[in-house]
Amino acid sequence: MAPQLDAYFKQVDTLAESFIERLRKAVAIPSVSAEDERRPEVIRMGKFLQAELEALGCSVEARELGKEPQREHLDLPPVIVARYGSDSKKRTILVYGHYDVQPANLEDGWATQPFELTVDDKGRMFGRGSTDDKGPVLGWLNAIEAHQKAGVDFPVNLLMCFEGMEEYGSEGLDDFIAAEADKYFKDADAVCISDNYWLGTEKPCLTYGLRGCNYYSVEVSGPGQDLHSGVFGGTVQEPMTDLVRVMAQLVDTDGKILVPGINEMVAPLTDDEKALYGDIAFTMDNLYESLGSKTGIFPDKEKTLMARWRYPSLSLHGIEGAFSAPGGKTVIPAKVTGKFSIRTVPNMEPAKVNEAVFKYVNDVFKKLGSKNSLKVWNNHDGRWWVASPNHWNFTAAGKAVERVWGVKPDLTREGGSIPVTLTFEESLKKNVLLLPMGSSTDAAHSINEKLDRRNYIEGTKLLGAYLHYVAEEPTGA
Amino acid sequence: MAPQLDAYFKQVDTLAESFIERLRKAVAIPSVSAEDERRPEVIRMGKFLQAELEALGCSVEARELGKEPQREHLDLPPVIVARYGSDSKKRTILVYGHYDVQPANLEDGWATQPFELTVDDKGRMFGRGSTDDKGPVLGWLNAIEAHQKAGVDFPVNLLMCFEGMEEYGSEGLDDFIAAEADKYFKDADAVCISDNYWLGTEKPCLTYGLRGCNYYSVEVSGPGQDLHSGVFGGTVQEPMTDLVRVMAQLVDTDGKILVPGINEMVAPLTDDEKALYGDIAFTMDNLYESLGSKTGIFPDKEKTLMARWRYPSLSLHGIEGAFSAPGGKTVIPAKVTGKFSIRTVPNMEPAKVNEAVFKYVNDVFKKLGSKNSLKVWNNHDGRWWVASPNHWNFTAAGKAVERVWGVKPDLTREGGSIPVTLTFEESLKKNVLLLPMGSSTDAAHSINEKLDRRNYIEGTKLLGAYLHYVAEEPTGA
Repeated sequence: MAPQLDAYFKQVDTLAESFIERLRKAVAIPSVSAEDERRPEVIRMGKFLQAELEALGCSVEARELGKEPQREHLDLPPVIVARYGSDSKKRTILVYGHYDVQPANLEDGWATQPFELTVDDKGRMFGRGSTDDKGPVLGWLNAIEAHQKAGVDFPVNLLMCFEGMEEYGSEGLDDFIAAEADKYFKDADAVCISDNYWLGTEKPCLTYGLRGCNYYSVEVSGPGQDLHSGVFGGTVQEPMTDLVRVMAQLVDTDGKILVPGINEMVAPLTDDEKALYGDIAFTMDNLYESLGSKTGIFPDKEKTLMARWRYPSLSLHGIEGAFSAPGGKTVIPAKVTGKFSIRTVPNMEPAKVNEAVFKYVNDVFKKLGSKNSLKVWNNHDGRWWVASPNHWNFTAAGKAVERVWGVKPDLTREGGSIPVTLTFEESLKKNVLLLPMGSSTDAAHSINEKLDRRNYIEGTKLLGAYLHYVAEEPTGA
Repeated sequence: MAPQLDAYFKQVDTLAESFIERLRKAVAIPSVSAEDERRPEVIRMGKFLQAELEALGCSVEARELGKEPQREHLDLPPVIVARYGSDSKKRTILVYGHYDVQPANLEDGWATQPFELTVDDKGRMFGRGSTDDKGPVLGWLNAIEAHQKAGVDFPVNLLMCFEGMEEYGSEGLDDFIAAEADKYFKDADAVCISDNYWLGTEKPCLTYGLRGCNYYSVEVSGPGQDLHSGVFGGTVQEPMTDLVRVMAQLVDTDGKILVPGINEMVAPLTDDEKALYGDIAFTMDNLYESLGSKTGIFPDKEKTLMARWRYPSLSLHGIEGAFSAPGGKTVIPAKVTGKFSIRTVPNMEPAKVNEAVFKYVNDVFKKLGSKNSLKVWNNHDGRWWVASPNHWNFTAAGKAVERVWGVKPDLTREGGSIPVTLTFEESLKKNVLLLPMGSSTDAAHSINEKLDRRNYIEGTKLLGAYLHYVAEEPTGA
């Protein structure tokens, strides 16, 4: 039986402008976890969230995580945990989100001030963190408020876990979750995370798999200091030359990973799995729209989705220590550090991936015959994750999507890593569902990040509806 | 006959501390021409220089060059021109220097505040611009002051030309010099530039040749915006991958330029020229000391000096638009611009070098089979220069070196480009001499730039002595 959601939905529509106002306040706090000088803003954002939750009658705690390891001058922002309801007859759902955001500066090319929510005539709400992940986090708060104001009984006990370091490695979170699994989180019957995106722009999805991510630095150094290329060019082996030659041998233009052994670790594609891709609502035009170009590698949607979901990829992100500003500088950088990462999939073991990368990078460098020094290391790794989409957590969410959006959701995987997904699964031993709010064109991590008004408001309805279906779904399903 | 310089020298020693104070004031002005927000500091430095010159009784003009082309929101700093003396019976020497400096930030690794002159117990005076080129510029002012206070007649008419955009392409200067060749500069009998360095740390030199510099940008673009590597990695052709693969094919670890046709443009080495290199006071240990490492390409001094002076080189400076900060960011940059430059030597024609580079870069990119777009362009070029070291301008300087330092100077060439050298020679049709003040370990363009107290004070003596010998040297020499 479908829950009686009409009163709740109507209340969400009534409160829509105040929900947008709540998002505007959140976006205005530049909670960039990666920037030292903005760390206090992350903490301020945590306090904002705490106050909002308390105003809604939740019991809230700001759990301190101490100093940031290796950067002891910085406090880690607290994990904001909260509980709404503790009726032992109800299911308890643990939801996760993050209140920190990626760096953003107007000069990067934003069309609007990144920390001012700017709504255009198409209902696109631009602002850093709008879709990743302040909109979804506030969606849970909005759902509580709309239930209260509609006078509708809240269908579950809600546990909330909102962190402030997701965009900078979720420092300290794994230990926290492991420690609280049998304490604060012990009642949780299932977990729901809203921190990813629809595959396209029109059809919602439920996500049951994620790639992992092994992030690497490779440093080449030689001279004691940066050198003038006029004085030293031609007489010294330049670290930048060596680094670029090493980086050029990691991956080719069509995305083929050149590190031996990596592709062999990938689980073979079965016929059953292959058959799943044809039905997914995704077109090459969806890809081209979100790319803003037609520079995709594959000509068809099946190969593209497989490349995103079930095959590894290697991206070169940049170089630290080289000249990176506009204009021209005639420097020979003394020490340069290339950054790259490998997205991992079943059955790649992070440690074996490291081993293969370290060996190959060192071998390639050795062949250059350079007197410079090379170091390569893993900055962090997060495992891939695949869950069962037949669990009641997923079937409930599927019904909620159908009720709110009028379509059955696609069952998808994701190319990105959300390491906390695996942490919750491993620590709590409960099913984890990824229930996205935003769409593929939201430009998370890029300039002009946005969340569509429609996705925010209908998404708030969806989060509430999901909790109602969760309350009803039989355990056996 | 050697000029009677003793009184002048003694006065320089007496005034040494006040000369260091003058340098301290100059270093304290962060006149970084490459940074928009510091452009007013460059202009402030020009005013400082103007005031100092006026206080010495020079007639001074600040010549405005208008707005910076392509960046019309920025004023170009003025050229400070000055005259000291106008006795038609004396020779007139035009001296050039620049009052802008390279960028410098404490976080780059400076051991001291870059814009505070810090003198250590070895007499090393650390600070941005100390040696490049504020020390030498002030050397001329010091020489005037010491003559005045010693009561020694100034031996020549001195014309001065100090610019504020040398570290950022000398925008506007060529036209200015060409326009003033028959006006402000019309009396000049010869030109002296102090903006380079000794080959080592102990023996002064006179410099009669410079390499040129062709600076390039190569931009690869594809997606409409930066992308998340989790979402798009493996499905899109990444501009950074293409750029790194192109840059890796420009030069090898041992400095060999891989662009076809470049090495063929180089004037062949004659036996006569080859024989010159053995006598130069330079050792591999000098190289290693200034490198701060033993990562040189060649095992002997002759090959090393030839590589620096008479062969071209190609250096990769960095990449604009990629991730360049500390930490890890999982971005696929949408547009990345590699920066590299080629040091040019006789008989390389800048236009032909451009042609060879553009063709090769486009060919290499085409072979990648990428759907991304590549653009390559020349940011600026400065020709190489070789002068006659037998002119009276050089022989006078040689005698001055012997008088001040007690040794005959090495006659050297330089690996760096000082484009204004060629501009003066071509516009004024007069001999140009490069008379360095600093030594090879001064780290111009690097962190911890310094000028040794000894080089500054004896260097001030040298500039004055040079003018006395110039006044005496027969034209026929």
